[in-house]
Amino acid sequence: MSLPAEFHEIAKRVNNWGRWGAADEIGTLNLITDEVVREAAATLRTGRRVPLAVPLHQDGIQTGMIPGRVNPLHTMVAVNMEVFGPGTVATSDDAVTMGLQAGTHWDGLGHVSHSGRIYNGRPADSITAHTRAAFSGIEKARHIVSRGVLLDVARAHGADRLPEGRPVTPEDLDAAEELAGVKVRSGDIVLIRTGQIQRCLAGEKEAYAFPSPGLSVRTPEWFHARDVAAVANDTLTFEIFPPEIEDLWLPVHALDLVEMGMMQGQNWNLEELAAVCADEGRWAFLLSATPEPFTGGTGSPVAPVAIL
Amino acid sequence: MSLPAEFHEIAKRVNNWGRWGAADEIGTLNLITDEVVREAAATLRTGRRVPLAVPLHQDGIQTGMIPGRVNPLHTMVAVNMEVFGPGTVATSDDAVTMGLQAGTHWDGLGHVSHSGRIYNGRPADSITAHTRAAFSGIEKARHIVSRGVLLDVARAHGADRLPEGRPVTPEDLDAAEELAGVKVRSGDIVLIRTGQIQRCLAGEKEAYAFPSPGLSVRTPEWFHARDVAAVANDTLTFEIFPPEIEDLWLPVHALDLVEMGMMQGQNWNLEELAAVCADEGRWAFLLSATPEPFTGGTGSPVAPVAIL
Amino acid sequence: MSLPAEFHEIAKRVNNWGRWGAADEIGTLNLITDEVVREAAATLRTGRRVPLAVPLHQDGIQTGMIPGRVNPLHTMVAVNMEVFGPGTVATSDDAVTMGLQAGTHWDGLGHVSHSGRIYNGRPADSITAHTRAAFSGIEKARHIVSRGVLLDVARAHGADRLPEGRPVTPEDLDAAEELAGVKVRSGDIVLIRTGQIQRCLAGEKEAYAFPSPGLSVRTPEWFHARDVAAVANDTLTFEIFPPEIEDLWLPVHALDLVEMGMMQGQNWNLEELAAVCADEGRWAFLLSATPEPFTGGTGSPVAPVAIL
Amino acid sequence: MSLPAEFHEIAKRVNNWGRWGAADEIGTLNLITDEVVREAAATLRTGRRVPLAVPLHQDGIQTGMIPGRVNPLHTMVAVNMEVFGPGTVATSDDAVTMGLQAGTHWDGLGHVSHSGRIYNGRPADSITAHTRAAFSGIEKARHIVSRGVLLDVARAHGADRLPEGRPVTPEDLDAAEELAGVKVRSGDIVLIRTGQIQRCLAGEKEAYAFPSPGLSVRTPEWFHARDVAAVANDTLTFEIFPPEIEDLWLPVHALDLVEMGMMQGQNWNLEELAAVCADEGRWAFLLSATPEPFTGGTGSPVAPVAIL
Repeated sequence: MSLPAEFHEIAKRVNNWGRWGAADEIGTLNLITDEVVREAAATLRTGRRVPLAVPLHQDGIQTGMIPGRVNPLHTMVAVNMEVFGPGTVATSDDAVTMGLQAGTHWDGLGHVSHSGRIYNGRPADSITAHTRAAFSGIEKARHIVSRGVLLDVARAHGADRLPEGRPVTPEDLDAAEELAGVKVRSGDIVLIRTGQIQRCLAGEKEAYAFPSPGLSVRTPEWFHARDVAAVANDTLTFEIFPPEIEDLWLPVHALDLVEMGMMQGQNWNLEELAAVCADEGRWAFLLSATPEPFTGGTGSPVAPVAIL
Repeated sequence: MSLPAEFHEIAKRVNNWGRWGAADEIGTLNLITDEVVREAAATLRTGRRVPLAVPLHQDGIQTGMIPGRVNPLHTMVAVNMEVFGPGTVATSDDAVTMGLQAGTHWDGLGHVSHSGRIYNGRPADSITAHTRAAFSGIEKARHIVSRGVLLDVARAHGADRLPEGRPVTPEDLDAAEELAGVKVRSGDIVLIRTGQIQRCLAGEKEAYAFPSPGLSVRTPEWFHARDVAAVANDTLTFEIFPPEIEDLWLPVHALDLVEMGMMQGQNWNLEELAAVCADEGRWAFLLSATPEPFTGGTGSPVAPVAIL
Repeated sequence: MSLPAEFHEIAKRVNNWGRWGAADEIGTLNLITDEVVREAAATLRTGRRVPLAVPLHQDGIQTGMIPGRVNPLHTMVAVNMEVFGPGTVATSDDAVTMGLQAGTHWDGLGHVSHSGRIYNGRPADSITAHTRAAFSGIEKARHIVSRGVLLDVARAHGADRLPEGRPVTPEDLDAAEELAGVKVRSGDIVLIRTGQIQRCLAGEKEAYAFPSPGLSVRTPEWFHARDVAAVANDTLTFEIFPPEIEDLWLPVHALDLVEMGMMQGQNWNLEELAAVCADEGRWAFLLSATPEPFTGGTGSPVAPVAIL
Repeated sequence: MSLPAEFHEIAKRVNNWGRWGAADEIGTLNLITDEVVREAAATLRTGRRVPLAVPLHQDGIQTGMIPGRVNPLHTMVAVNMEVFGPGTVATSDDAVTMGLQAGTHWDGLGHVSHSGRIYNGRPADSITAHTRAAFSGIEKARHIVSRGVLLDVARAHGADRLPEGRPVTPEDLDAAEELAGVKVRSGDIVLIRTGQIQRCLAGEKEAYAFPSPGLSVRTPEWFHARDVAAVANDTLTFEIFPPEIEDLWLPVHALDLVEMGMMQGQNWNLEELAAVCADEGRWAFLLSATPEPFTGGTGSPVAPVAIL
């Protein structure tokens, strides 16, 4: 099997390989300039902060569908241990085992390959069990702070959440942009709300996972045209799943991560943010969402905060 | 053994139990109001961003001195796995096992107890192996964004780094404040640079750990007087170690975390930030440092970013 | 709530505290003398070996019902890594995270406490997050090799497996003993087959877990009368679950582990062994089932082998 | 770089590919027939049992020299948890993260490859991060019980332990065989004592690791000539390290595991066994050493027991 011509045509149109030099490892994060950050900070009005991460614990999002992507096993390695003798100050310490893509996370650029390549044309086999991602590891991002724009597609449809299996199209993004009264521009981080995470918050994990609304294979061109720095949403698979085109699995991943070099965020809880944006009547804000610097990571948990 | 009278006297002076109600679980983070955040954002000039976390990998900070606080074991659970058949888009996934206090981290308010109590007078035994911290778990912080102030104590001493075993005193903080030309105020997050982390960056992990400069038992009153929201520095133990007062181990932890309800950050890399602050001639900035929301966590890795 | 009088009466009758001295940490394993082992070896006829452990992998027995008891997350930390340069001998290494009670395992004597005590009257709070089981840790067993006797209760009932919720009674054990033509004696390890593990092998994990046949609260006296060294079976909970006596949860655990100091084995796959025993017409054999020596472990995976 | 002609010549002489069929995955374990086991059991005299595993805890053998091969992080996930309400029976559960090759372990046949091949000519790339070892995984061993023979090379040299850097040669094995008064024969598991593990037991972990006595590149032919089923010793690297032939790293691993299909055991504590054998004046016994059945494992912890 190989990827269809249709995929390769879109790929050609959104490809960023070499755009920031042959040595580049961070792709569209390059679009977040100091100026972009200054303008992002200038959006701040009220100072309200809204966290976007789901809690990390053993009864988390994962259902076992994706091998190895385990929910956090969070254990105490010490509980009120009086290290220096009875009656002294006591300490408690904890440890965790978890999939880096198990909760609210960023996909790093090494998370996906196609045709033997990752972003910027690097060989896919530069990722190994012991080196992990030698190129474009998640730690190369260093910091992710920019203007965030919430495109509340569910709201634009007058719905609390999109129906299962509904692709989010460029037209949906246009409509949500219109609703927000804001134009997405270079360096922005776009948050796309489908409402699907309500399923997960209600304990319906299987229903959350699949089938799910998600991004259409037509959206990468929309992101590319606007020079978006990164995109996150409130679903498990990010893109529409099962896919729109039969047997073309994960095309949005391949276009965003491999071709454009654009990081993707998944399992972001955008519910509280949607309410606050509606309340304040504005959908652009300062967004801070730096991944944990796992060396060679192909992803990382993140605790994003929108600052309004 | 019990804690000396001297400790209890300071404790009385800095105690915040009940200040934000009997139900409060976040202590001095309450001081970060919307207004504080608005003013923090107003400090932004250039838009430069400086990450403050050390890389997370197996050859990390920990030496085995603290049982259970293991460096990250970061493994690939899938490498270019063609989930949907040969020739399809391939994915790579990773997992990690690590101590939550192993790298750049926040101590949550449950990290330390004394005399059977944690912050706000809650019983220490509310922390168990299976519930973890039932009160004041790290996830209760929700978001940590405020004005950051770098107090470059090493620089104020005309040194690249403080000598081992040197306590950082209130007078040192005053001197660094003067150098910075900024007054620490309510809701600020104070970053205190000793330069000690250079030892770690140079691969001298044992020397980094111990003996180390760090905060004097006299500093909690300084933080309390200014209503600081949180404090972080660039050492393993945060406070001077071994301690100033014989047999009084971890008094600063007990005063900050238990009495004041003030979170502490450790192993923050302040070297690049110090250079940028010196370059820009200003030591106050917007700081974003939200912990990962581990339910009941007594600490969490954090990837802080200073935005100038 | 407290344990009913009925429980305490049985407890009194089977209690072994002090029987092997106040310092003893291994309980009924003391009954496996050199002579017992010599006689066990003398049972060997054909030399056939039958393994009794279920495979260890992520799609294992656990369903998430028991918090923290996670199936193995088994990852490669190196795959064909040419450590000493290209073209040299390459190595692959793996790591695992798992609950020690997740697969085929022994419960150590510290696994259960009641009324604040573990075996031999030791305080339950001698188990802590950082010391783990200071007394009767699983490593104290050192070796477990003895005569094994398969009591095939399902077969004695003319059934392939016992119905769900069926307690295994002393009378059942007598019947199975009769069928086997062997008298259980001091130092024996008794393996009790219900056939329930077939549910697990068929992928019906929830059905395997609950409701399940298992040992009646009346069996500890049977084991005590015969001075059995240890008992294992082919269920998740070992004892009948839900319990026979309302609100009296895990009484068999408390009687076996705490009162008698007798280790219990769970999730043992006795299907192949049952077939071999029936084929050879004998139900006694040499059994080798030493736990991994986790210091302070309250349990351990084990890979038992029956040698016929 | 490629492996020298010298290596390939020995390889040809000891190669077992195809010997037990093209589908075989267990190599020399095929030599342990029922008859071998019957004869092994017949060696039993006193019934004494000697455990050969080192304790599993965080302060274990590993020093960090081998990436990813981490000492056990053994934590409690529950401590005296009263699952069914206050006053009920309480349970304690534990979890572990560890390298499968971290303590006393078997190397599975997938642990090493050379020239792109593992045992029986299978492609090395059949081992992946997500499938692990698809062929010759450690779980294929099923059971390892046979006659064990202790070749106490240190004792044969009149030494408590061999000097660092001393290769164990075929002549040494002959001498130890003579001392033992036993001829190694088909299906035996040979345990070779150098005494090196004393360094580890004394807390000198670095000295234990390197430089170390170990098996000479000439020993695989000795094992092959006698049709040994498996070999274990009391060192970290098994073979002499650094190697006898410059730039020929791990040749014994490649010959034993890849060419012969013979499993290797490392970090076995043979000290107590040596004393018991000397005391009883016999060096052959029943050995039980079944690995934990990790599906696709390239190794496994093992808790071997010698039964005399």
